[in-house]
Amino acid sequence: MADDFPPGSVWLVGAGPGDVELLTLKAARLIAAADIVFHDALVGPEILALAARAECVSVGKRAGRHSKNQETISAMLVAAARTGKRVLRLKGGDPSMFGRSTEEIVALCNAGIRVQVCPGVTTASAAAASAGISLSLRGVAREVRFVTAHSSNGAALDLDWTGLAASGATLAFYMGRGAVGEIARRLIAAGLDRATPVLIACNVSLPAERRLTTRLDLLEVATRAFAEDAPTLILVGEALDAGSAASLAAPAMRTVTHGEP
Amino acid sequence: MADDFPPGSVWLVGAGPGDVELLTLKAARLIAAADIVFHDALVGPEILALAARAECVSVGKRAGRHSKNQETISAMLVAAARTGKRVLRLKGGDPSMFGRSTEEIVALCNAGIRVQVCPGVTTASAAAASAGISLSLRGVAREVRFVTAHSSNGAALDLDWTGLAASGATLAFYMGRGAVGEIARRLIAAGLDRATPVLIACNVSLPAERRLTTRLDLLEVATRAFAEDAPTLILVGEALDAGSAASLAAPAMRTVTHGEP
Repeated sequence: MADDFPPGSVWLVGAGPGDVELLTLKAARLIAAADIVFHDALVGPEILALAARAECVSVGKRAGRHSKNQETISAMLVAAARTGKRVLRLKGGDPSMFGRSTEEIVALCNAGIRVQVCPGVTTASAAAASAGISLSLRGVAREVRFVTAHSSNGAALDLDWTGLAASGATLAFYMGRGAVGEIARRLIAAGLDRATPVLIACNVSLPAERRLTTRLDLLEVATRAFAEDAPTLILVGEALDAGSAASLAAPAMRTVTHGEP
Repeated sequence: MADDFPPGSVWLVGAGPGDVELLTLKAARLIAAADIVFHDALVGPEILALAARAECVSVGKRAGRHSKNQETISAMLVAAARTGKRVLRLKGGDPSMFGRSTEEIVALCNAGIRVQVCPGVTTASAAAASAGISLSLRGVAREVRFVTAHSSNGAALDLDWTGLAASGATLAFYMGRGAVGEIARRLIAAGLDRATPVLIACNVSLPAERRLTTRLDLLEVATRAFAEDAPTLILVGEALDAGSAASLAAPAMRTVTHGEP
């Protein structure tokens, strides 16, 4: 399998939600084999420590702050591959979900550089696991919707709020920390019950993980308990409720419950 | 960390899409530590080989055939934990997505048994990685919707087709093999362009993986090329198109393209 990472090629690799143990075996192998690793700011030191042979280059990307723009990152990948290095682009979570992978893949392909992708555990899966719940629930939520709630320059989110409110799905808002007030107001205005269960989770899977279970109309207030720059995931939906009784019974799970009736 | 799996406790673990290398490091460690493993039929021998100390019990669950019902599986987990074993429930993909985890978690908690969950890579992430595409794409699809398309007894799918067609999201239909005709007809009737790109993928991440890129109105015909009992994922959306040019340029990617204009 060593020949799946030849010199001059690039792997886009999902680092998962944060815990080094939530890397895939494949990701760990590729990281150890890389000559240079370009990583998001959120990828932690324990994961980067696996890059034994590699130079590690942070290319930024944190909520609200992009230290490099996308074109620059793509150009860095192309340039590094052209020097004959094994290049690894390490992205938080799963590369196919809100990771802007397409832009990098297209740039590399256009440059004639071989690029492959290794998937990762997405943060919503890890948050559900920590909370001891499921995102789908037969008879309650047969759909899970992953939405990016990041807006540029504070502009209103251009989302189909009526559709989101009416779908009966579990909603997972990524990068929604700065938009929690808007998310709650718009969903309630679109008809979603204001008592709909909400799970706020930051630093998912890391020792600093914090979770708070509340209801939709208390989302904005509850989020104030979280550091503004911590990567935060917002889950909304009735399926979350079925797990809360269960997770309270499980001694291993730290669940802070807020705003229960 | 060894003390996170005490005798008499249960872990629900995501086995990922199929490739043993797409297990997380944590899943591999827990599997090796288990005394007994209850696994879905789709979990392969390479993964089960990691269960060095464990008795492995298949509890079925394949498209259309459930060798054990959910209550029986939950009761088996409870009974095994009560004998003081380290019990591992190994589920295809990610346990929080269409894995019926909540039912098992609630049963275990009600029995006073400690249960924890280890997330996994969901199949849609792995299919996107194999195809060299992204499920979300800035300016095209800022949302990804995971839908279970499994219907009991051949009943029509109870989904909000209008909402699905109008959302502009990338749609991932799990367990949709038997419903491809209905999925295509309903989405087109609800207004989705009949030329919308579709990716059909079966046995994702395994040596037997097959992928076919086509368009929505050819979905049913194209799916006939896939074995009926192979686990099959259907992806629908404009974001899939942006990757296809890229994936054709990448020599490592096997892409069968069907029905291109």
